[in-house]
Parts: sequence; C-alpha cells; structure tokens
Amino acid sequence: MSSSVLIASNRGPVSFAIAEDGSLTMARGAGGLVSGLTEAVKGTDALWICAAISEGDRYAARKAPNGRIDKGGYDITPVRMLDIPPATFDRAYNSVANSTLWYVNHLLYNTSLAPQFDTTFRREWQAYRDYNDAFATALAEEAAPWARVMVQDYHLALTPLMLREQRPDLRIAHFSHTPWAPPEYFSLLPDDVAAEVLTGILGADHAGFLTGRWASAFMDCCEVILGATVDRERRTVRYDKRTTQIGVHPLGVDGEALLARATAPDVESHMAALKDLIGDRKLIVRVDRTELSKNILRGLTAYREFLEKHPEWHGRVVHLAFAYPSRHDLPEYREYTAAVQRCAKEIEDEYATDDWDPIILHVRDDYARSLAAYRLADVLLVNPIRDGMNLVAKEGPILSERCALVLSREAGAAAELGQDSLLVNPFDISGTAAALHEALLLPETERIRRIARLRKASTAMPPRRWFEEQLAALAAR
Amino acid sequence: MSSSVLIASNRGPVSFAIAEDGSLTMARGAGGLVSGLTEAVKGTDALWICAAISEGDRYAARKAPNGRIDKGGYDITPVRMLDIPPATFDRAYNSVANSTLWYVNHLLYNTSLAPQFDTTFRREWQAYRDYNDAFATALAEEAAPWARVMVQDYHLALTPLMLREQRPDLRIAHFSHTPWAPPEYFSLLPDDVAAEVLTGILGADHAGFLTGRWASAFMDCCEVILGATVDRERRTVRYDKRTTQIGVHPLGVDGEALLARATAPDVESHMAALKDLIGDRKLIVRVDRTELSKNILRGLTAYREFLEKHPEWHGRVVHLAFAYPSRHDLPEYREYTAAVQRCAKEIEDEYATDDWDPIILHVRDDYARSLAAYRLADVLLVNPIRDGMNLVAKEGPILSERCALVLSREAGAAAELGQDSLLVNPFDISGTAAALHEALLLPETERIRRIARLRKASTAMPPRRWFEEQLAALAAR
Repeated sequence: MSSSVLIASNRGPVSFAIAEDGSLTMARGAGGLVSGLTEAVKGTDALWICAAISEGDRYAARKAPNGRIDKGGYDITPVRMLDIPPATFDRAYNSVANSTLWYVNHLLYNTSLAPQFDTTFRREWQAYRDYNDAFATALAEEAAPWARVMVQDYHLALTPLMLREQRPDLRIAHFSHTPWAPPEYFSLLPDDVAAEVLTGILGADHAGFLTGRWASAFMDCCEVILGATVDRERRTVRYDKRTTQIGVHPLGVDGEALLARATAPDVESHMAALKDLIGDRKLIVRVDRTELSKNILRGLTAYREFLEKHPEWHGRVVHLAFAYPSRHDLPEYREYTAAVQRCAKEIEDEYATDDWDPIILHVRDDYARSLAAYRLADVLLVNPIRDGMNLVAKEGPILSERCALVLSREAGAAAELGQDSLLVNPFDISGTAAALHEALLLPETERIRRIARLRKASTAMPPRRWFEEQLAALAAR
Repeated sequence: MSSSVLIASNRGPVSFAIAEDGSLTMARGAGGLVSGLTEAVKGTDALWICAAISEGDRYAARKAPNGRIDKGGYDITPVRMLDIPPATFDRAYNSVANSTLWYVNHLLYNTSLAPQFDTTFRREWQAYRDYNDAFATALAEEAAPWARVMVQDYHLALTPLMLREQRPDLRIAHFSHTPWAPPEYFSLLPDDVAAEVLTGILGADHAGFLTGRWASAFMDCCEVILGATVDRERRTVRYDKRTTQIGVHPLGVDGEALLARATAPDVESHMAALKDLIGDRKLIVRVDRTELSKNILRGLTAYREFLEKHPEWHGRVVHLAFAYPSRHDLPEYREYTAAVQRCAKEIEDEYATDDWDPIILHVRDDYARSLAAYRLADVLLVNPIRDGMNLVAKEGPILSERCALVLSREAGAAAELGQDSLLVNPFDISGTAAALHEALLLPETERIRRIARLRKASTAMPPRRWFEEQLAALAAR
C-alpha cells in the first residue's frame, strides 16, 4: 500500500516478447489510449496496473520482484502486470469487451443474428467479472490511503464498484474512451448485465467521457435502465445513496511532440518516397486500424463513386489508405479486412492506367509512414460509423499545411472540429463522395483558415492536461 | 371527387390471380393490417386505394371501369388499384420500404456493412417518391371536399404531405403499424431522406402509432432531426407553421369474430389432428411470418437451451413452430428461413427419440391450423426483436383456455399485456429458456387469472373502434 496515484488499463505502457535465446525484449505499448496516458504520467511515480497480454508479458510478470516489472532503460512510470489466466483473459477481452461491450456502444450488431446471450455468454461474463476483480484486488493492495485511482475504458467497467467495496477510502475515476449507446440499444444486453456495467462505472466518484454526447447517452441509460436520478445541468447521477460526477474531457494531441516526431529522419525519408509515388497528383489520405467501426469499406466505396461521377479527376488524384491490422482473433475482423482488400482491388482493376494507380492500400502498420502521409495530404478522410473521439482527425491538421478534413459527424471529434470540416453521414456513400470532391476543390485561403482553427482545437487538451484535469476533479471530492 | 372517407395502403382487401384459362380469380388480401382494416370499414362506402401487386392485380386494375375494381361477390368497400410500373413498385416496396425504412425502425441493420446509401439508393428513393405520389394523386382525384383520408404505414410516409400540397382542404391521417427508431438510429438515413420521411408524415393532421413508446420515438426524431417544437404532454409536433396531433391507438382484436372463426369445422379437424400428434405432452406454440424482426432463430435456440438445462422435460413437451413465408424477394429473408430450418433440424437430430419429436416446424401458411394451435397451447412464445404491436400475442389468449404468454418486452403489445406475461429480453437466450420453463410450470389458477386479464386487454380496441377513433380525431380538427 504505497501509491497515491494509480492507473488501471488493459494494455500497459510496455510489452514483452520472448527472443529466440529465451531472453525478454521490451517495446512500447501500442494504441491511442496507451500513448496518451504514457505521455500524461511521464515523470510521475503513478503506479500503472495492466494485464499481461503476450506470452512475454506473462513471463515478465511472473519473474517481477514485488510485482513491479523491470522497466529496462525505458523512462516510464512503475508498472505491475497482472498474470490473468489465458482462458479468463480471452473470454473477458475478446468475447465480452471487444465482441459485446464494443459492439453495443458502437451500434455494430447484426441484430437479426447477434448477439445471442446464452450459457456460453454467461461463462464469458463470469470471466469478465473475474478479470475486473483481479484489477480491483491489485489496486486495493497497492493503493495508499485516500489514493486516487484512474480506471480506463470498457474493459474495466466493473472495477470501480468492486474496488470501492474493498477500499471505500479511495477516490476512484473511470474514463470511457468509446462512445456510449442510447438506452434502446444498450438494453440489448441482458438486464442484469446492463445494470452491472452501469452500476460498475457508477462505483467511481468521477465517470469521464470524451464528449457531451456520450456523457448524455450514459446518463440516459442510468435513468432509463437503473432508474437513477440524473441532474443534467450539474452532470451528476445519484444511485444507491451515492452520487457520481459525470465529466467531459475531450482528449487532444500534444502538438509539439507530434511535430517533433513527424520531422524525424525516418518520416522525412518516407515523405520523399511518397512524393515520388504521388507526383503532382492530389492526395486523399486515411489512417485507421481495420476496425469495423472505422468504416473503411464505405470510405473506399465512396471514393469509387467519386471516381465514377468525376472522370475529370482520373489520373489527377490518389487515395492512400492505411488500414492497419486489428483484432485478428475475431473472425468478423478478418472477413472485414478481406472485404477491404477486395474493394481496393476492384477500384484498381476498374480505373488504373499504365501510369496511374487510383488507390494504394497498405495493411502493414508503419507509424512513420502514416506521419509522412498526414504531412502530404490534400484531403484527410475520417468517416467512422461511430467513434469515441478519433485522434487521427486531430493529428492530421497539426501536421499538414493544407489538408481539408472530411469528418464523420458520428466521431466524437466532430463536436470540436465539425465547424471547420466537411461533415458527412458515414452511411451516406453519395454524400461522402460529394464531400471528397468538395474537399479537393476547397480554395487555398479557406484551407489555411480552417487548418489554423483545427490545430487550435486539436491541441486544446493534450494528454497531460486531460489527465491532470481528472486528477484535480478527484482531489476536489 | 366523391368519397368522403378514403383509405390508402400498399396492399388492398382483395388480390387477383390469372387462372390457366386466362380468367381472373379473386382472394381476400393477406396481412394483419389488411384484415384489421377490412373489418373496420365493412359496410361503409369508404374508398380503398391500394397498389396492384400481382400480375392478376395489374390486369384487374387495367380493365376496371373508372378505376373501381370489380369486387365479385365479396362484401367489401369500393377499391381502386393503382397500376404502378413494376420497376418503380419493386424499388419502392422491396428496396426502400422493406429493406430500408423497415430495417431502420426495427434496428435490423448489420451496420458495419449496411446500409450503403449510394447512387443506386438514390434511384430507389426517387421510385419511392413516385410511388407515394401516385397514391397522393389518386387520393386527390377521388376525395370529396373536406374528406377524411387514412394513409397507412411506412410504405406511404411521403403521401400525407404530397396530398396536402394538392388538396389543402382534406383532413389527413397517417398511421404507423411499425415501431419507430430512436434518433441516433433513425439518422443512419441520409439527412434529406430522414427529413423527408418525418415531414412527409407531419403533412398529416393526425399521426397515429400503436404505443406511446413509438409515438415518443417519433417525436424525439422530429425534435432532434427537424428541430420541430414538440409538446409531449399534448402530444403535438409543430413544424413549418403547422401542428400535427400525435395519437396512440393500440390496435386490438375482434374477439367474437375470432372465436367464431376458431370454432369452424376446419379448425376443429386440425385440432383433432394436432391432439393425436401431441398426445398428453405440453405444447409450446409460436406463429410468425419468417420476418427477421420476429426472432424465430433465437426462439428455437432458447428452446434448445431449455431442453439442455431441463432433461426432466424430455419426452413431455413439444414445440410447434409455425414460420410462414415472408418477403422471399429479399435474399436476407431466404437465408434466414434456411437458418431457421437448419436450427430446427439440429434440435430434432439432437433430442428426438423413436416416440418423441421435440420440435415440429411448419413453413407453409395455414390459418386454420394456426388457430387450432392457439387453442391447444400451454405456452405461447412471442419474442420479436422489435415489433409495432404483435397481434399473435393478443389472439392466442383469446382462443386458449390456459396458455401462458412468454412475450418480448420489445413488442408494442408488452405495454398492455406485459403485467400478465412472462416478459423477456429478446436477445437473451438464457432468459427466454428460463421463461419457457417458468411458463410451463405456471399453476392452473394463475393461468386462468392471467388469461382473463389478457383477453380483456386484447379485445379493448377491436379494429372497428380503432378506426373510428381515428376518424373521430380527424373530424374534430
């Protein structure tokens, strides 16, 4: 019991792999949540509790003295990795978190066939409870009296209440990095499961969301499903004799750090290669994990409709689509990735000429190349079905001198960036195609005016401020 | 210009087929809406305008004097059938009404892949407009000054406003027989299409819904999407300088007529055959069109989980599942029907013995047999994903002496019947399996008490009263 600030999240700031000689190699953790948080707590002694995910992680966790993993030379906060049994982890992470809670809050279900909450699901749900309980128990062990605990995201919805039951002295925050579903959709979940998720989060003193829209949806669910008392003006939810403060903290980007990274030599050399490839053609860029909610397929289809309607652009524009691997343990994701590749190939087959590739699809992750693409983009396409925030929409304008942003109105970022973007309905292929055309034609002066405002909005709340704001909110409790 | 009361709906009270000798044969129209309305207007001289659907209908429409079809010996109200071009009809009916508006209001989309609102959809949408306009034009031609016009359902969402523009003297009602989607889901539609549907219905003086829940969802959409002024207490929507009254009219069953039909000889003989088949086993019945929203597949899966968890019922219960053909023009429906048949076969393969068939699935429509099944049921399972009302839930208790009703809370009927049913979350297989078990064990006295209250609620608003209430609401304008 020593730490006065603790973080809990599924992934941690580092991950391990076992090399051929049996030794451990270490790398920075991946994912937007992790990189933001790593920035936010750099230089503090906050304890970060995460799950061991790879075999290397498990090995590192088991041999760690006092549970603290050896950070090697990395400048990161102390880390404790939880060695949760693989079957429990798989059910909690893949089946419940990513195939149930994620689907609900992104409205992704093919409802005539899924979900089916049967006995198999009940076993998975118990694993999710066990997984959340492992975090709660570790946090209870590690937290100093009155410590502040920052629980992250949908993987850990039950942890706040579980932790409170063990340690009523602690000040607990939960933050949702996803959207939230309206009550009519959230109640696809079995009644007891829906209630357990909501009361789990309400176990926190402070429940944070990325936009007012998701915060409102959460409050609606608390009111309709739990019968909780909601004060929308003060953003509080009163339930079971406790009051939870609902917070809106629109995570942004550390602009200076991003610019520094994006001018490193590896990015510069990618830029040179891309310039060779693109020539003086206009460039439409997208950068996403291949996640169902990212809507890559409709983005490609919209580009195809754009080419069909505007032959004047043939040979004069290239769409560079980075669709990085995601959640390949889930068959739906593998099928979706294949469909994305098929669609790109169809566009290529239909429109390519000897000296023009209308589309270049990359499915292998390369951060430096993504940064280079942002810098060169004339148009950045960000069209998710639904998205907690979407940091691509914030990173692009920071790096590009002149790109126009075509942005889904269903991305959390639309609340801050909507006025200076071309907003689209992500299901509207024709509307998206028209927006791509309009974005390409946007006059230079207008681009520059918009970019300035987009940058200001995107950097308004860098990760450290975002984190400190929540810590301060907890301190005030 | 002669009729003072007019009805407009996609299907009419009769349909025609061309016999081998080239002559026309006539039959009563099918579907819940049509049979309710036929009852409601019997003996009046209301003019019913509908679309020609079959080749026989088109032939009858073309040779009809003054557009009035020859009713033969049928005791029905005058009918005019509109001979809408087949391509227009197919796009309006299959692509827009049944594959778009139906999907939206029943939350049926597999959102990562569908809908895709592209140029093809735009052509379909124009056909839907043309189809609605054909009705508006015919109504404008036929209506006497100040006549009352009753426009039915999602096929004809644009007709009220189109008609008002041609004939501002008329008093127009629209009635939605479906659920209505919450704004977050309704706005999957392209913005202009969403607005056109809402303003189309608001062209009516009176917009009716089956329950308060769907009326509220419609008002939410008007407020959020159109920015209309909504008075929830008075149930009015003010938009574009006009006020539309929102009405809630929970359509019920004419109990006496149903009982009379259900004691006819054909039903009695089906009862005898079913009794032979079932013996003294308990009987779980379901009767549905094989419509994605009816949730037949999860119903069968729940029955399988029930058998798995309760071996004490093996050999002592039979599930009689009537899944009648529906919308076989849509590939999704054909696939779903195949999946239902596969699932039933799996249950049979797994549990059947030499003297016990655990499940009997019928996919051929037979109304008399359905009525016989209602009369014999111990449990009636009605578990739609989402349903405007669901009249099966109301018909069953009228005919059965002792059946317990397992009812989806997402059916409109749950508002009236919920207190005396075993309510289930339709996505919760385990919950549905548990409800089937509980329903089978419900004590006789409790069944009888519940049946009495269910009958009262089910017959509270028979079609004729339902229709007259709306006519009266219009007269008061």
